[in-house]
Amino acid sequence: MTPTTLAPLDRDDLRERIAAALAQFLAGRAEALAGIGPELEPVAGTIRDFVLDGGKRLRPAFGYWGWRGAGGQVADDAAIVRAMGALELVQACALMHDDVMDGSATRRGAPSVHERFAATHRASGWDGPPAGFGRAAAILLGDLALVWADEMLGWAGLAEAALVRARPAYDDMRTEVMAGQYLDVLAQAQPTISTERALAVARYKSAKYTIERPLHIGALLHGCDAELLDTYSAYGLPLGEAFQLRDDVLGVFGDPEVTGKPAGDDLREGKRTALVAVTLERGSPAAVQVVRRLLGDHSLDAAGVDRLRAIIEETGARAVVEALITERTEQAIAALGAGPVHAEAADVLTQLADIVTSRRH
Amino acid sequence: MTPTTLAPLDRDDLRERIAAALAQFLAGRAEALAGIGPELEPVAGTIRDFVLDGGKRLRPAFGYWGWRGAGGQVADDAAIVRAMGALELVQACALMHDDVMDGSATRRGAPSVHERFAATHRASGWDGPPAGFGRAAAILLGDLALVWADEMLGWAGLAEAALVRARPAYDDMRTEVMAGQYLDVLAQAQPTISTERALAVARYKSAKYTIERPLHIGALLHGCDAELLDTYSAYGLPLGEAFQLRDDVLGVFGDPEVTGKPAGDDLREGKRTALVAVTLERGSPAAVQVVRRLLGDHSLDAAGVDRLRAIIEETGARAVVEALITERTEQAIAALGAGPVHAEAADVLTQLADIVTSRRH
Repeated sequence: MTPTTLAPLDRDDLRERIAAALAQFLAGRAEALAGIGPELEPVAGTIRDFVLDGGKRLRPAFGYWGWRGAGGQVADDAAIVRAMGALELVQACALMHDDVMDGSATRRGAPSVHERFAATHRASGWDGPPAGFGRAAAILLGDLALVWADEMLGWAGLAEAALVRARPAYDDMRTEVMAGQYLDVLAQAQPTISTERALAVARYKSAKYTIERPLHIGALLHGCDAELLDTYSAYGLPLGEAFQLRDDVLGVFGDPEVTGKPAGDDLREGKRTALVAVTLERGSPAAVQVVRRLLGDHSLDAAGVDRLRAIIEETGARAVVEALITERTEQAIAALGAGPVHAEAADVLTQLADIVTSRRH
Repeated sequence: MTPTTLAPLDRDDLRERIAAALAQFLAGRAEALAGIGPELEPVAGTIRDFVLDGGKRLRPAFGYWGWRGAGGQVADDAAIVRAMGALELVQACALMHDDVMDGSATRRGAPSVHERFAATHRASGWDGPPAGFGRAAAILLGDLALVWADEMLGWAGLAEAALVRARPAYDDMRTEVMAGQYLDVLAQAQPTISTERALAVARYKSAKYTIERPLHIGALLHGCDAELLDTYSAYGLPLGEAFQLRDDVLGVFGDPEVTGKPAGDDLREGKRTALVAVTLERGSPAAVQVVRRLLGDHSLDAAGVDRLRAIIEETGARAVVEALITERTEQAIAALGAGPVHAEAADVLTQLADIVTSRRH
């Protein structure tokens, strides 16, 4: 991904300022943990590294531009930038717990949190199974990130009235992402998946969580009318689906050098994505049989991955999903143009629509 | 445990009213989940059953009497009763995640949450390992309980200013319980444990979380001076340590019929409690060797459990811990009498000190 592509995310140094706010907030939390016991240094350190070493800061960006689109002025944006760091901490919890649930060894090209703690356990020659220790640590670090998210929102310096306005959207966002994750886990466990069902999972796990709710939270923190919220939904929901569909395509066809995940990892994990659902709906009985046999095979080799990829191409599923991505992205951009979003924000949100759906990682 | 013993917990129908508030709040959450998808019914249902089918409501009771002790009047207590249900939801998260971390098959005499979802997976003949599905579900249900706790606090109908006053104590409580859990997991993984270290774990995992912080939260929700908070700390910290020490003794010597946990479960899990630490400090080299060999052996049979129990008795460790429990309980009660706690609350908190340290489950 070239720097140019990310320019809207870096506008007004947004990503840098969010990272600085996270660093400042987490330094305070690390101090609190150190007061409890020096053994907690790796806990604070790992959360800090996890949050600061990666991430495109998409959710804070949507939250920030949701606020600007409601009339927030760049001159007054210090508190909103700080507050939006909270969304990165919710996401840190979701990712840490997701990696435990999926048994993923890597995240953003580095060992996942449970792997890091398992490695410490192994290297220290401690008692009991290293994997169990790693899992326990990652569950607790995720819990901490989740509760720290709330604290960061309160710490940011926004008016109490603004927090009260935005709190219901923030609460809904948290319930929706957990519910969406559960639907996803359930879909992986069940032998059949329809495209409709896969898109419903995407709606809760990604569309509402990553785009619609951050926009609503930003707008409500500023203060806004119902029409703006509706516009953000009409933009956020199709765009969020397109975002998840792009993720599904990258999980199968992405370049490991860029995604930070092994090639074909989603296939080995047996993810029942919309891409897989469309493949099963369009494939010949023979192709469907191969997909059912290979999908979720954790020992799948490069040839197996290539075979599945070929089927996904040949059935036209990849093309269908690409068409869905384009259609939903256009729908999102059109909805934005029709609503009462302040011009500069509308411009950036239009660019963000392209970024999140044409990204390579 | 006879009903008489629990009388202070049931005073003014407190436990019943907290359960009713939880039922009402959780019905709303179940509706929200049903709106996302009918597949989420078991998620809402399991959280509801977990929260309503058991628990002594200790944390809400301390929160409530913390509020009464600060001057809260029984005639105005509807909102505080509702708000204290939040503490049960934080605890539900802690227990669900704890059972995943410990791999505990039972909780309160029934299958743990991850076991319930694993059983559904097995019975439905779904794809993938049932244990992995159960773990994922329990992680997500715990996350939901944690975020719903905040919502319940906001939903209770307390004044915004009261919530702002109590929020830092609530935040600290959440960080402390997660940190305490991590220290506990770490202690289980490390070959040595000192009594001092075991008591430090108990302080964060139990004393602050179960007693001191709920008292502070209740008092701050009412409004109070620093002297009352100090009194609650001087009462809550030693009492909370005694509470955890009682838990340690019950984990080894408790009656499975009453505790709802298999006999000697803590020994099989290899818990490095203060009771174990004192045993190791006082035991002969031969006894220490036996403890080191048998502790944490998941296949330990009844004879092995009896052997460990005998060593814990013979070294005098059980008596030492019982003496610590008595000493700390008396210290707590004395501190209470010396502080500015309203009389009726002081009376109930004195009774609660006896309940939590002489309980049988």
